[in-house]
Amino acid sequence: MSLTYINLSREQLLKELERVLSKERFEHVLRVEKAALSLAKRYGCDLLKTSLAALLHDYAKEFSDATFYQLMTDYQLPQELLAWNNAIWHGQVGIYAIKTKFGLKDSTIIEAITYHTTGQKKMSLLAKILYVADYIEEGRAFVGLDRVRALAKQHLDQALALQTAQTLAYLLKNQYPIHPKTLETYNAFLPHLKAIKSTNLKETL
Amino acid sequence: MSLTYINLSREQLLKELERVLSKERFEHVLRVEKAALSLAKRYGCDLLKTSLAALLHDYAKEFSDATFYQLMTDYQLPQELLAWNNAIWHGQVGIYAIKTKFGLKDSTIIEAITYHTTGQKKMSLLAKILYVADYIEEGRAFVGLDRVRALAKQHLDQALALQTAQTLAYLLKNQYPIHPKTLETYNAFLPHLKAIKSTNLKETL
Repeated sequence: MSLTYINLSREQLLKELERVLSKERFEHVLRVEKAALSLAKRYGCDLLKTSLAALLHDYAKEFSDATFYQLMTDYQLPQELLAWNNAIWHGQVGIYAIKTKFGLKDSTIIEAITYHTTGQKKMSLLAKILYVADYIEEGRAFVGLDRVRALAKQHLDQALALQTAQTLAYLLKNQYPIHPKTLETYNAFLPHLKAIKSTNLKETL
Repeated sequence: MSLTYINLSREQLLKELERVLSKERFEHVLRVEKAALSLAKRYGCDLLKTSLAALLHDYAKEFSDATFYQLMTDYQLPQELLAWNNAIWHGQVGIYAIKTKFGLKDSTIIEAITYHTTGQKKMSLLAKILYVADYIEEGRAFVGLDRVRALAKQHLDQALALQTAQTLAYLLKNQYPIHPKTLETYNAFLPHLKAIKSTNLKETL
């Protein structure tokens, strides 16, 4: 199987991923691909693009901070990125390394990877699928996950909305910084959050 | 007592406030002034400016939506304000009516009123005092308030940080939109939130 959108075969890509990622993260990536493909079939998204977005999404996750600083310099990225950390950089900065390394040019895949941690106001079906799949893949385990998993089978936007609200609650409770894009996603998908038929959403949050 | 920074005496201003505000809100405004003056004495802020910022902060709170739309048009304010509501407008839009009506020109007072609902990244002492006083005034009653009141006597930035985190949690739990400025305040004051000596902050949030 060739991946079409990059300059490697699937086998070559998997080898490269195994080389740069820890065993745990490599397996996470495969589980995200599985979850994403399941959603792609359910909602009618291109399966090849879905595979590729999933396989590449954490490629930069284990880059050193020094590598990210170098990328920000090389590509003259906005100064405001300096205020953030790996959680943001592996998407928004890492994508520049991914594009170069793999010859990736597809704008939908690029955008999905860039904002897979935070989401954003307007998201393609592929971006939604990657964002949700990364959260619900079968290796994850935390409070509130079952509800998002169940919603993801029925209503992707509602799953995305609840995931974002739960992420905000998690960041807040743990006194972590919250990226403006995460808030943007929360506000944009708020109508879907409100539409969830639920009896104990407040407890989940 | 003349208020110096506006074209009315204190008595005239109080009469005007009574005219445009409901009895409940007028009394809230007086309680905010009391709380703000107490903080101003504790932290060394100009008492006259503090009084005036407190007395004027909710002047536009009972304006109709139509009035806010008119102000946005008249002053050509950013389109993005349209996505918000009274909670944001009475500060960020109302300030234009307040400046005109009272001949208010002091930039510190203007900024404190403009962002009294959301805070922002950089806040003057006056802005901090108004933001916190509005939250802790003696008529308020909600979970987590006692802790902010206690902190406000010892460490204004920590009180402000906790207030903002609690506000975010409240908005999230009630599925309300969250303004980017509120998030900006949370992120900017996060070091102060982390510095709070506390055993059960997670429960409060």
